[in-house]
Amino acid sequence: MSSTALTFSSCAEHRAWLATQAALPRGFRVGTTRFDFMPKEAPKPAKMTLTLIALDQPTPDFAAMFTKNAFPGAPVIVGRQRLGEPVLGAIIINNKISNVCAPGGVETSERVCVETARLLGLPATAVLPSSTGVIGWGLPAEDIVAHLPQAAAALSAGSILPAAEGIVTTDLYPKVRSAQLGAGRIVGIAKGAGMIEPNMATMLVYLLTDLAVPRDTLRAVLKRAVDVSFNRISVDSDTSTSDTVALVSSSQVPCDDLAAFEAALTQVCRDLAEDVVRNGEGVRHVIRVQVKQAATPALAIALGKAIVNAPLFKCAVAGNDPNVGRLVQAIGKHVGAHAPDTDLSQLRASIGGIEIFAGGAFRLNPEKETALVAHFKHAELYTSQPTAEGIFSATVDYPPHERCVEIEVDLGSGSAGATVFGGDLTHEYVSENADYRS
Amino acid sequence: MSSTALTFSSCAEHRAWLATQAALPRGFRVGTTRFDFMPKEAPKPAKMTLTLIALDQPTPDFAAMFTKNAFPGAPVIVGRQRLGEPVLGAIIINNKISNVCAPGGVETSERVCVETARLLGLPATAVLPSSTGVIGWGLPAEDIVAHLPQAAAALSAGSILPAAEGIVTTDLYPKVRSAQLGAGRIVGIAKGAGMIEPNMATMLVYLLTDLAVPRDTLRAVLKRAVDVSFNRISVDSDTSTSDTVALVSSSQVPCDDLAAFEAALTQVCRDLAEDVVRNGEGVRHVIRVQVKQAATPALAIALGKAIVNAPLFKCAVAGNDPNVGRLVQAIGKHVGAHAPDTDLSQLRASIGGIEIFAGGAFRLNPEKETALVAHFKHAELYTSQPTAEGIFSATVDYPPHERCVEIEVDLGSGSAGATVFGGDLTHEYVSENADYRS
Repeated sequence: MSSTALTFSSCAEHRAWLATQAALPRGFRVGTTRFDFMPKEAPKPAKMTLTLIALDQPTPDFAAMFTKNAFPGAPVIVGRQRLGEPVLGAIIINNKISNVCAPGGVETSERVCVETARLLGLPATAVLPSSTGVIGWGLPAEDIVAHLPQAAAALSAGSILPAAEGIVTTDLYPKVRSAQLGAGRIVGIAKGAGMIEPNMATMLVYLLTDLAVPRDTLRAVLKRAVDVSFNRISVDSDTSTSDTVALVSSSQVPCDDLAAFEAALTQVCRDLAEDVVRNGEGVRHVIRVQVKQAATPALAIALGKAIVNAPLFKCAVAGNDPNVGRLVQAIGKHVGAHAPDTDLSQLRASIGGIEIFAGGAFRLNPEKETALVAHFKHAELYTSQPTAEGIFSATVDYPPHERCVEIEVDLGSGSAGATVFGGDLTHEYVSENADYRS
Repeated sequence: MSSTALTFSSCAEHRAWLATQAALPRGFRVGTTRFDFMPKEAPKPAKMTLTLIALDQPTPDFAAMFTKNAFPGAPVIVGRQRLGEPVLGAIIINNKISNVCAPGGVETSERVCVETARLLGLPATAVLPSSTGVIGWGLPAEDIVAHLPQAAAALSAGSILPAAEGIVTTDLYPKVRSAQLGAGRIVGIAKGAGMIEPNMATMLVYLLTDLAVPRDTLRAVLKRAVDVSFNRISVDSDTSTSDTVALVSSSQVPCDDLAAFEAALTQVCRDLAEDVVRNGEGVRHVIRVQVKQAATPALAIALGKAIVNAPLFKCAVAGNDPNVGRLVQAIGKHVGAHAPDTDLSQLRASIGGIEIFAGGAFRLNPEKETALVAHFKHAELYTSQPTAEGIFSATVDYPPHERCVEIEVDLGSGSAGATVFGGDLTHEYVSENADYRS
């Protein structure tokens, strides 16, 4: 659950709020540059942004988690090796091309690190690379190398907002969340809107802090925070080949309360994860599923995921149609296929606080239907409106509010619970993804 | 793979072909009736069709398989009990309401059986009930009982087509397949367009034969046929609460070649399964995935399902966009999550016979892209065209052809294989499902 309940009435208002979140911790600078290039696999030019995050001093205190997709991108392969290196000095990120299974992809990724390191006076192994965008195309190495000096020249302390804007692809708006902890702070940015059901890691997320937490502790804390944030969301059930979350400390401020640090980091991760869903491709309703009294945490999480990934229920939400049968179908499908011994006789389900299922049967009437429709409409982020050609696209470039379609499923047969976030399935999702590249 | 390669240029031509398939085996009659009623959960009237399939003589030789969804419909609960009864004399089917988890649903279903049995001079336990449609609503028992005599009066030998038309909901057209085997025949009908990823059974399918095959053999043969047909398809990854496939023999023609019977039944099931996908909600491209050289049959099937269920790849197919990165993402997601020890280094993938991945990297160039687009367009069933209000709906009411998007994934690490069918993800699917009930 978000720590805040924000509403925005314009992009300018949202950007002003982002600016309040975006102060960099001590010891970090960011710089970006944008250029045109010609992909060798495609017939027309494209644009790429390079985003450079640099530490004033290389640090041993960094952590990263990566996708579990069996075809990881080249930067993920390189990044896993970086975890064994003594220090990290910079992160270099490009959008537009994800460098996944492209011939010579690892070599190209390493070359970008070498050039970045040279500009910053670092060993190449102290640079973490990240790429996001089209899967299958190769990185334009010469173009990147030619433009790296501009990104380095743009390095600036102060705000992380240029980086939050630099890493996006189909995102509608930049995502920044932060926490102040005594004299130190944590600031995080996230990129990602589609191909999102992270598995042990997530899209691209960079978390920076000046609070001094040693490497091993940092890695353990990050894993726990990711497990309850990015691993509890799904936009479209697809798991990216590039998922990466990195946490870097400049260690300039003593951290005297590790529990407070973990709580703050977890909240930043949860807020960013919810931001990613709210800004998910085509998402017009965020769906929050709270599963309660399950036999195991794994069942609670899996049931929540099964609900937010059920296409028919997602379509019903998109249409403000309280088709509760599809919700129960999704629960029964998961349990029937994966946990057939589960006792569902005590299951109770509600939407927007309205009980719709109990004692093995639906509890419906026309008044409840009307109230459910109102709940769905209240949670809608914007109204769907096609162009004359039948193209649907988002009509907001900021998050108007943080309301969700609230679903509660109480299994009545245990003590485990989980909260999972997902989105609806809309014409905007299909419009975006039936013709993303062209 | 379909036994035929049919093309149709009009609904009339398709109906004429259906008529050639639709002859009832000896010993069966069908009758239907349609009426208006007022659902007690909704504010406006609805229409329901009752379809009655009756045997001239009750038979001990019948088989049925049902959904594995953990919230089975009341008719599924009743149907499972019927498997233990000595004979079956009739099947009574209604559309519009599926009678799932409705208060008193089993009692209502039994009451419909009692009334059907009374009209036909049967014990109630010799009637198999089936219901399909909205989940959550209760059956209008009085209306059904009042209209049953009309369905019984309409009973007629000759054609199964009235039943194929009577059981549909969102289907675009009726589905009938048959096989002639010496003096006997098998005829099957299927209903189902959405909420389709059957698990051990399927939507509503009725297979009738006059060939004499004893009950136990019939049940074993049906299970094997279903495993390679209805259990290899997915329209939208959702598993219905009402899936039912029933096979009934009137045993009027001696069956002297059981292997030929099984082959013919399997082909009828495969053809119907492919029909269900082709007629799936919003499906504009049928996707046929052939997985080869997998370590186990289970992996081959699961990988095929992972591909046809990956939303981003399905959207790309809808847009005739050969976004091969999303195909590899889908494979890597499944293997990373469920079979992480699988060796993917020998994986080769092709679309439309064009190699796109081998030796750990993509094999792409602009010429291949052009050829892939042409392959996708050739497999399109109809062109997407919204109304002025942005509503998308199918522009055909017959299957224009049986061409598929052909995907081959060769794992190069075993001897198992599987063929799986699925559909694309389109605006037509969202339009249909964001406002199905209203």
